[in-house]
Order: sequence, then C-alpha cells, then structure tokens
Amino acid sequence: MSITSHDVARFAGVSQATVSRALRGDPRVSAATQDRVRHAAQVLNYVPSEAGRSLSTHTTRRIGVLVSDLTNPFYPHLIGPLHDELERCGYRMMLLAERSDDALATEGLLDHSIDGAVLTTATSGSELPDALRRKQIPFVFLNRVDGRDGADSAAVDNERGGRLAAEELIALGHRRVALLGGSTDTSSGRDREAGFVDALAEADIALPATRIRRGSYDFDTGYLGLSELLAADPDLTAVFCGNDVVAIGAYNAALRAGVRIPDELTLVGFDDLPIASWEAFSLTTIRYDLQEMARAAARLLVERLSGDAGDPARRVAFAPELVRRGTHAPPATRRG
Amino acid sequence: MSITSHDVARFAGVSQATVSRALRGDPRVSAATQDRVRHAAQVLNYVPSEAGRSLSTHTTRRIGVLVSDLTNPFYPHLIGPLHDELERCGYRMMLLAERSDDALATEGLLDHSIDGAVLTTATSGSELPDALRRKQIPFVFLNRVDGRDGADSAAVDNERGGRLAAEELIALGHRRVALLGGSTDTSSGRDREAGFVDALAEADIALPATRIRRGSYDFDTGYLGLSELLAADPDLTAVFCGNDVVAIGAYNAALRAGVRIPDELTLVGFDDLPIASWEAFSLTTIRYDLQEMARAAARLLVERLSGDAGDPARRVAFAPELVRRGTHAPPATRRG
Repeated sequence: MSITSHDVARFAGVSQATVSRALRGDPRVSAATQDRVRHAAQVLNYVPSEAGRSLSTHTTRRIGVLVSDLTNPFYPHLIGPLHDELERCGYRMMLLAERSDDALATEGLLDHSIDGAVLTTATSGSELPDALRRKQIPFVFLNRVDGRDGADSAAVDNERGGRLAAEELIALGHRRVALLGGSTDTSSGRDREAGFVDALAEADIALPATRIRRGSYDFDTGYLGLSELLAADPDLTAVFCGNDVVAIGAYNAALRAGVRIPDELTLVGFDDLPIASWEAFSLTTIRYDLQEMARAAARLLVERLSGDAGDPARRVAFAPELVRRGTHAPPATRRG
Repeated sequence: MSITSHDVARFAGVSQATVSRALRGDPRVSAATQDRVRHAAQVLNYVPSEAGRSLSTHTTRRIGVLVSDLTNPFYPHLIGPLHDELERCGYRMMLLAERSDDALATEGLLDHSIDGAVLTTATSGSELPDALRRKQIPFVFLNRVDGRDGADSAAVDNERGGRLAAEELIALGHRRVALLGGSTDTSSGRDREAGFVDALAEADIALPATRIRRGSYDFDTGYLGLSELLAADPDLTAVFCGNDVVAIGAYNAALRAGVRIPDELTLVGFDDLPIASWEAFSLTTIRYDLQEMARAAARLLVERLSGDAGDPARRVAFAPELVRRGTHAPPATRRG
C-alpha cells in the first residue's frame, strides 16, 4: 500500500541499510550516494517511518512538554519559544496536556516515545519526576524548581519578585494589604508568597490569614478571591496577585463591585503577559524574560541529552523587575 | 538496561506474543491471562515501547492536531474538549504547532507517527490536505470547510453568523458600518464576511473598501485596524469584528482613542470566548457551541478511522446566535 525503504533501495540500486543511513545523513555514506537515495525517495514519495527509525536508532528526537492548563494564557506564551528553540536543536515538541487525572500524560512520558521532557506544572507531590528518573528519561523544570534534589531548572527568582511587590506597596504607604496567591503545592506559589510576606514582616506589616486566598493561577481565583477578601475586610487598600491572570480576574471583580482602581484599590500582578499592557487594565506587575526562560529550559535539556552537561543540577534564575503602569496608587479611604 | 516484553513473558509464564496481545486487550487472550500479564508488567515496572507496538499493529493511536497560533485564546479552548473526546475514544492527542514555515508540522503529520489529523488552520492554498490524502491519512477540518471537495468537517454556520451581526446593526439604525474581518484565505473569514455584506446589501447599506480591514484573527488586527478605520471615517458608528480577539483589540484601541463604547461606537464580536463576558468588555457577540464543535470533529475522525463512516464527506454545522451584552447601542453623532 505504501512505499517502503526496500522500494527506495531497489530504485537507487543500493542496500536497504544504505537507504536508512543515507536518509539519516550518516557520514559513512558518500555524498553522491546520499544524493541518489534522496532523489529516489523523492521520486517515490517516500517518508521514513518514524517508528522504524526510532527502533533502529533508539532515539525519537521528540521532547514531551507537559502543561496542565492551556487556557491559561501563560503557557501558550512559553510554548512558542520552547518549540522554536527545540526545533533549532533538531528536536520536535510533543505537547502533552495534563487533565484532571494525569495517567495518560504520564503514560505518554514514560512509554519511550520521547527522548526527554519539560515539566512546567508538576506539583510538589507529583510522582512524575521520580518515574522519569527510574526510566532514565532526562527532564528539566520550567518555571519551577525542585526543592528535594537536583534537577535542571529555568525559573524566575520568584521570592525576589514577591519582595519587589511588597516593597512597592510599603513605599506607597499601604498597611492593609492582602494576597491572592498561587497554590503552595507549587514552588512559584510558595516562593512568591514567601518573598512578599518576609518583606512585609520586615516593615512590621502583618498579613493575617483572613487576608490571604490561594488557588490555581486562573481568572476565577482572582475574581472570586477578591470578592471574598473585600467582604472580609472592606478597608483593604492593596492586593498582590500571584500572577497576571489572577490579577485580571480581581480587576474584573472590582469593576463588578464598583471599586475604583487604582483610587480605591491597588493591584499588582506577576509575569507581565501581553494582556497586562492592554488599555483596559494597564496592570502594574512583575516582569522577567519569559521567552528567554523558555529557551533556556530547552537548551538545558538538549545539553543534558547530548551529554554536554555535568552531574550537578543546573539552575538558571531570571531576575524580576517591577513594571509600574496604572493599577497602583497611595491608599485612600474607600467607604468614606 | 530497561525491562522488555521478554522479561514480562518469562515472569508471567507466557510467550512474548501473548504479552503484546494481552497488553493491547486482544480478545484472543483470556481474561485470566490478561490479568496475569498486566500484574507481571506492573511488578516489573514495564511500559510497552510505543515504537515497537506501532510496528506490530501499524497504528499509533495518536491523532495530530495542527494549530497555527496557540497564543490566540480560541485554540486552547478547542484543545481541551478535543483532547478529552479523543482520549475517551482511546486516542492520544499530539499537538503540532504550525509556525512561520510549516515544513516541520507537515513532516510530523506525514511520517506515519499519527493515525489521523485534525486541521484547524490550513488555509485555502495549503497543500496539506492533498499531502494527507496521498499518504492515506484520514483527517477532519475543525472550524473550517473545504470548498474544493469532500472532507469531513465540523464548523459553525459562519455565513449565518455574519448575517445575524448585520441584522442587529441594521435594526439598531446603523448605516455607517465597518468590518474588521479575518483573512479571506480562510473559510471562516470569507463566510462571515459574505453573510455580513449580503445582509447589509439587502438593506441597501453600502460597505465601501475604505471601511473594510482584514487580517489574522489576533489582537493587533483589531487594535491597529480600528485606528485606521476611525482615521478614514470619523463618523463610523458600528464595527463587526471577525472574532472576539479582534473585537477586544478594537475595544482597547477605542479606549486609547477616547471613543466611548457603546455610546459612540458599537462593537460586535464572534465566538463568545470567556473573555467576551468579562466586566471590562461585556462584548456583544455571536455564540455557538464551541466545545461541542471540537467534540464533533473528534468523533467524525474516529468514525472515519474505524471504518464506520461512508464515502461521502460529512459536514456538521453548528447554529450561531446573537448574545446581546454591553457593546451595542443605536448610533449617535460622536464628534458633535
């Protein structure tokens, strides 16, 4: 039914093994023969079977990228640069969407159909890193670090970012502040919160549990969370949000509640996604080089796969900075 | 180095062929033996090699999904339901991102590493459908139809949607209307525009070329396009946008220009993505069942793969409806 390497071999007048080698660009095959084989493959409309190639070389040239929630605009912005950098290095990206149960994603990562993996979302309790280690499949963490032991990672300095947000609120004179944080199951959630809380404590500003809400990094966490925070403390003057998507959710909840931003409430986000700079929001946020972070993760993994990386785990940390736009102001009495 | 099916066969006391059959759930293997083999595989921490499985069965149980731009929030909303429906049918989704050149994506679709494909973005001029046909790889169009010949497709009735938008603007009394449309290289762009223009013409309302801008379905098309339209005709009172993302871009450009929505300008979108209902925009738009459309495409493809579909191409068309929110109003003189 379809053309095989045997057909190409017959057409080119070489052995089947030579066809495989020639199409891989193996230097043991002369340039003239490679040309002849490629011409034959083209004439016959032959595409090498990836499965066959995989069995003969024991590599797939595929990298699995595991994400949990593509509707979070954060991940699509990572995936473009990841895809391009992996392609530049000769790898193809296979995107694995982790849904409610991660059985399928795990199977996809472990069944030898990939050479390596980029983990963007595994939580602290995930068994995936250990399972990958047992299978000797190299991996890199993107936008998270592994507290327990050494794995290559590319991430922003989240603690420093949380600290920058707190320092800005303190400088503006805010005292009744709140946190709409990410899950403490994630290193980014934990570290952003730790930096924020530490900097507040150093300025003698308390952050009671009633002024903390945590959740997934999504719109609803901000939208529902801000309503709860305002109900618990109507005199709140500033909220640090775990990421921009949460901040946009909070912004829309403030619009619904008739709370004016920034006059009555200051909001600070994290990530500086394109949506943060839209006129409708003009969000003050924490920025870092998200695209370069994705490319760095790709390079860490490729170096690990090619044996160019030594034993110790490498961490590439990106420096965050505050971007002042339109959602911050000194505190004002709201319900005056 | 790693556990093979030979090890599992030895442990379970069966032949290697029986291991393969049992793990595939082949009914020729008794339930008791299947259990014994699965237990052995579990104890030994054995994961079947996908490459080996693929060579022995000539199927991969993988479906390639080709998208052009994941940062467009439209696609992530399709991908979740697609993934879940394919999984329910026993297939795994492989997401292929089409970048500036589609060589890699094409290779990924044609090298026998997938059983079928979902095409969401191929433009009219794309060679991909023909290439897939030559390779006898079944595919389905999602959110587009193929004008030339028969391919299964699941899409909204785009022409009807464009007509609904025009009828609403006409009923409100708008006469100086404009279009920020999608590319005419895509069936959705062409059909939405055709329905809109036809309904306007029937009401004797002209749409001169100076009041039409077309582009990718992205924020910038709306953001830059609205600025150009307003510069060309400051008395414009309503704009129909090719999709919600374009409409949100136009909304932000209006904010920047100080044009009040809906008092001075009516905006209508298309798709009813979650962002359309955010308080910040409250976009009047055209809605259809986007998630069911994605699931329908998955089912069309699975039926085609399993031989349950007949020869004629099947088209599943979804009915659009107008959702009235906060961006439409009767025309008013703006620069009074």
